[in-house]
Amino acid sequence: MPAVMHIDRSADTPIYRQIAEQFKEEIASGRMPAGARLPTVRHLAAQLGVTRLTIQNAYAELQSSGWIEATVGRGTFVSSQVQVRPRWASAGPVATPAAVMGDILEMGQAQGMRSMASASPDPALFPADEFWDCLAEQRQAVMAVAGYAPAQGDPGLRVEVADLLRDRGIDVTPDEILITSGVTQGLALLAQSLAQPGDTILAESPTYVGFLHQIRTYGLRPVGVPLDEEGPVLEAVEQQVARQRIRFFYTIPTFQNPTGYCMSPARRAQLLDLAGRYGFYLVEDDLYGCVAYDKPAPATLWSMDQHDQVIYLSSFSKTLMPGLRLGYMIAPRPLREQLVSLRLAADLGSPLLLQRTLAAFLHRGGFRKHLRRILPICRERRDVTLRTLETSMPREVTWTEPQGGLCCWLTFPDSPGLRDIYRRALERGWAFAPGHVFLPQPDETPHLRLCFGSLPPESLRRGIITLGQIVRERMAVDSGEPAPAVDWTPLV
Amino acid sequence: MPAVMHIDRSADTPIYRQIAEQFKEEIASGRMPAGARLPTVRHLAAQLGVTRLTIQNAYAELQSSGWIEATVGRGTFVSSQVQVRPRWASAGPVATPAAVMGDILEMGQAQGMRSMASASPDPALFPADEFWDCLAEQRQAVMAVAGYAPAQGDPGLRVEVADLLRDRGIDVTPDEILITSGVTQGLALLAQSLAQPGDTILAESPTYVGFLHQIRTYGLRPVGVPLDEEGPVLEAVEQQVARQRIRFFYTIPTFQNPTGYCMSPARRAQLLDLAGRYGFYLVEDDLYGCVAYDKPAPATLWSMDQHDQVIYLSSFSKTLMPGLRLGYMIAPRPLREQLVSLRLAADLGSPLLLQRTLAAFLHRGGFRKHLRRILPICRERRDVTLRTLETSMPREVTWTEPQGGLCCWLTFPDSPGLRDIYRRALERGWAFAPGHVFLPQPDETPHLRLCFGSLPPESLRRGIITLGQIVRERMAVDSGEPAPAVDWTPLV
Repeated sequence: MPAVMHIDRSADTPIYRQIAEQFKEEIASGRMPAGARLPTVRHLAAQLGVTRLTIQNAYAELQSSGWIEATVGRGTFVSSQVQVRPRWASAGPVATPAAVMGDILEMGQAQGMRSMASASPDPALFPADEFWDCLAEQRQAVMAVAGYAPAQGDPGLRVEVADLLRDRGIDVTPDEILITSGVTQGLALLAQSLAQPGDTILAESPTYVGFLHQIRTYGLRPVGVPLDEEGPVLEAVEQQVARQRIRFFYTIPTFQNPTGYCMSPARRAQLLDLAGRYGFYLVEDDLYGCVAYDKPAPATLWSMDQHDQVIYLSSFSKTLMPGLRLGYMIAPRPLREQLVSLRLAADLGSPLLLQRTLAAFLHRGGFRKHLRRILPICRERRDVTLRTLETSMPREVTWTEPQGGLCCWLTFPDSPGLRDIYRRALERGWAFAPGHVFLPQPDETPHLRLCFGSLPPESLRRGIITLGQIVRERMAVDSGEPAPAVDWTPLV
Repeated sequence: MPAVMHIDRSADTPIYRQIAEQFKEEIASGRMPAGARLPTVRHLAAQLGVTRLTIQNAYAELQSSGWIEATVGRGTFVSSQVQVRPRWASAGPVATPAAVMGDILEMGQAQGMRSMASASPDPALFPADEFWDCLAEQRQAVMAVAGYAPAQGDPGLRVEVADLLRDRGIDVTPDEILITSGVTQGLALLAQSLAQPGDTILAESPTYVGFLHQIRTYGLRPVGVPLDEEGPVLEAVEQQVARQRIRFFYTIPTFQNPTGYCMSPARRAQLLDLAGRYGFYLVEDDLYGCVAYDKPAPATLWSMDQHDQVIYLSSFSKTLMPGLRLGYMIAPRPLREQLVSLRLAADLGSPLLLQRTLAAFLHRGGFRKHLRRILPICRERRDVTLRTLETSMPREVTWTEPQGGLCCWLTFPDSPGLRDIYRRALERGWAFAPGHVFLPQPDETPHLRLCFGSLPPESLRRGIITLGQIVRERMAVDSGEPAPAVDWTPLV
């Protein structure tokens, strides 16, 4: 309930309605979420010094208009059907990486929001039956799964992950694998393990927003390296590593986030050579490595590495289930022990029930089967996205054409009206990820990350056409031309 | 498989048996865990330069003695039935906190191990049917639970936790709650948020080993404050806070880990006063607050706090299910936003499926019902423990007599033979937690933490009697007397 409720006895508005309105404000603002319990009539009447009838009237109004629900014997609650228009933190004047990340996570659960902001798989493609069978299997060992798991991860899950890694040309024993809460936790542990506050970390520009958020949170300094279609520009890497001590270079070589670029085999070999010569780790994020549409992905940096210079990370968040929060990491031995100790400090380990369920799913071959099913679907979405961009964007706009992964990267002309294009789209109920949060050194050029994995083709088309309209409108404003007529509800 | 396999062609032992023995060593050492895949016959024969028949003979020997299993078409694996005698890291010459923590987590899953080392609930008391019903309920919203949760935690779970907190005299809105991966993660986020490397942190001595591990891992300096039965000795607290800037004081006021002490209401008020005067946060870990045997627990520090000086943490790990990895935290507003940002950096958030399952369990009243059921059982275990200590320990040994929680703290005479009592017990298959890891400044006095929550009375009796025998043996050795006869299999 509202922390302080104001009653004005001299106002024209009846007191019961004043109370009801204040509850509505709390609910609409999200401060009282769906399911929150309202105080009892007796309690609130006593607290506010009004009659119980006044409170009953207020609750009756809220109930008849669908804001609250009463269950006999249990109490009164904010209705689970309430659709709050969310106030996205990232729609404020400064969209910080944390605000954008927070919003992306919540958009997945928001009603009536259409999001191309999250590089996630489509929940509609989730293999619910197969996954649930594996979950149900754990019922028989319920006492075991109620307990703690080893901090390094359930041994059975590590066996299955080792088996899966062969598909990426990686041959390791289960003992070499560390289970993590997604790639994000793996990167956090690495940042804590490999670097000290003030250290410089190299990353591609643009790169994963969560990594930049971590690096800055832990007091490290991210420096960006520009990308071309073959991967990071090596001259720029060498310039940085020659000038200062670099602890590690964070790279997403295969179907990079957010560009979708795939590093060429030659560039991979050259980068490994550079890492060897200057003595820095390559932290390889292979999150999208198995999401290849046109031809198999090239060999991982890890499998080309001869000198324990590559630390490898991946997870199931982009292919199976983000909410599972399970990823994995391979690190050279001395580092591995330190990482397990850091994991103990961070949270002791991942939930055993989910680890065992995932192990069963992998053991049955469920994951490979799932990939075979979703890859053609995601490929079609990629194709629809690129075709619609072609037909609906002004020629000044450019974008990448990924051969795998779940996103592409749009670049707009550096025109003031296009700098808040992210917010303009959000106002029309479409979410993209604003580009500046992906840049180690943000610049003025407007960018968006467009993720095509989580919506069906029809929605992708509508969203991209709307985006195209917004771009034309804003460019017209900037050039002083009259704004083109806007079709607020595209029919295509 | 073994990283390097040695074959001695001049030895008397046939080559196939040399190979089989090396696999046994790998399996018995835990380097090849149950379920690990063995190389194919063809591959290993080529690698070792022997005939396929040699490898087939080696595998046949391993299979007939139950070390491995072969499944047609899938391959050969380490048998899931293999019971490795674990080599506990903490049984080495230096039992570090990380080694002890790691072992405690794994002992829960070890076969044939009887552990009083983990302050965990008995898995046999886990309300499996009720919990599984709540899990099954999530099947209907499977697409939602496959996705990310908000970093602050599922709003529905926060509603239920806010409701539960009333039992501890805490009145907060769901918006004020942060869901964490157990109290451990909450403490890690606080350490990162409130302190800089080099800062001094105050804690009770002894205190939670995981906290000490974190503090040191993050480069902070823990300083211990002695305890009496009423709580931390205030003169010692004031001496520390007057001398240097203290960022926060970590306290477990109610049924403290590992002593079981319960801070008196008067001491709580005095401690709050001290925190106000010197300007430091009190971090209140209320993990055992609802595990009261003899009378209700006193009011929490949080509910007595008038000046936003208390940060409150608790979880479901000690009462319901450690493997759930779900806890919660209440922090003053500005800190809360920073904690959510740190949570994004750490791992994005907790698995939504488990959060929703727990919310449903709480919503049904399952947790309160579960507590009512287990409290008398745990109380009996506490009673059996104290009675058995009384009859089986030499009079030089002392222990605390907790009125709640899951553990008591044993103090042994400072006799050299008793310093490795932890390892001696482990050798006989009984695990206690070695005392020195709970001390901010370890000393020579031998201590053990004895946790009575996770074993039935009969096992508690046997374990404590065995411990008593070990103590007498060691004391006799130290005093030069002949060792008393040892009954290796106590009949009581």
